[in-house]
Amino acid sequence: MATFQKEITLNASQRGTFNITEAIQNIVSESGIQTGLCHVFIQHTSASLIITENADPTVRQDIEYWMSKTVTDGDQNYRHNYEGDDDMSAHIRCLITDMSHTLPVTRGRLNLGTWQGLFLYEHRTGRFNRNLVVTVQGD
Amino acid sequence: MATFQKEITLNASQRGTFNITEAIQNIVSESGIQTGLCHVFIQHTSASLIITENADPTVRQDIEYWMSKTVTDGDQNYRHNYEGDDDMSAHIRCLITDMSHTLPVTRGRLNLGTWQGLFLYEHRTGRFNRNLVVTVQGD
Amino acid sequence: MATFQKEITLNASQRGTFNITEAIQNIVSESGIQTGLCHVFIQHTSASLIITENADPTVRQDIEYWMSKTVTDGDQNYRHNYEGDDDMSAHIRCLITDMSHTLPVTRGRLNLGTWQGLFLYEHRTGRFNRNLVVTVQGD
Repeated sequence: MATFQKEITLNASQRGTFNITEAIQNIVSESGIQTGLCHVFIQHTSASLIITENADPTVRQDIEYWMSKTVTDGDQNYRHNYEGDDDMSAHIRCLITDMSHTLPVTRGRLNLGTWQGLFLYEHRTGRFNRNLVVTVQGD
Repeated sequence: MATFQKEITLNASQRGTFNITEAIQNIVSESGIQTGLCHVFIQHTSASLIITENADPTVRQDIEYWMSKTVTDGDQNYRHNYEGDDDMSAHIRCLITDMSHTLPVTRGRLNLGTWQGLFLYEHRTGRFNRNLVVTVQGD
Repeated sequence: MATFQKEITLNASQRGTFNITEAIQNIVSESGIQTGLCHVFIQHTSASLIITENADPTVRQDIEYWMSKTVTDGDQNYRHNYEGDDDMSAHIRCLITDMSHTLPVTRGRLNLGTWQGLFLYEHRTGRFNRNLVVTVQGD
């Protein structure tokens, strides 16, 4: 068994989801690992990682609709609002989604279901660089 | 260290939770690994995996009550509703629960707490086959 | 590659968040592993683990505000309330946060972002011992 680790920086241009499946597959390919696990970790607390349907973009629009409704921007009861109305809501959105995902690797490929994609979910409304640490372990 | 990987298909007969702890333990036993981690991944975007109390079934009934209340089926604002009122809500339920869990393995057994069970949580109201990829890594 | 595993018990004195980053770093250091992954698992169903901002305590106060609002204590529709109003809400809070986190290890250190901390999130209002299983795998 071997461990392969690489850091990458992505630029998320606005609140919303960005498909990073291919970028992560490229790192798995670079690792040469055929059977094992790929762990993707985001080093932030206001952007997260989600797995959801990769085909119909209305799925991600509806996710954003539900998120906006459930985690209110600019709630008057938030104390932490130094960076604006999307500051504290971004932290809470991270909490109920995920800071990392672990994906199976089989025959050198991310072994996702047909309809699954891995997305960076930017929760801030501005433009940010987001750093990921990708670790692949296996044979 | 070694990697062991196996895919299994389960049939979830309706919306609700199904205890899969023993099915996963059987794969850990088959792997022969004594100390390490077991990763269980579901290859879908409308059924998820949860860890919760394994004893009193009212816990899972209350979870379903809260889920139904918090993630509305057939919300008029959803755009993605091709497969019915439970289509988009199933995707959102997956987002706030988990697509995979990683469990410690100790002396060849899943090292769960006394009251913890691993459950497949089917979010669609129909009957579906659900494919899991189980990866065990360790010594 | 090697696997290192250790169990620790923490005492959470009340509902709220407790920074455990340093306690976990100490286990990573003890493992001697330089590059790999650290998996932290909580063996309970009414306390969970979260990654969030480590600097301003109002972030965690606002998280608790949102949690209390979104997952009602003592909801009259809960059937599972044997241990009080915080019993079932604690189980649901666990469901939408996380029972484990996997963190990258780089040059012998948890490779977290500058503002990230790992916290035990106690959801019961009493005092409980909470057992964690920490597994480090890598080179």
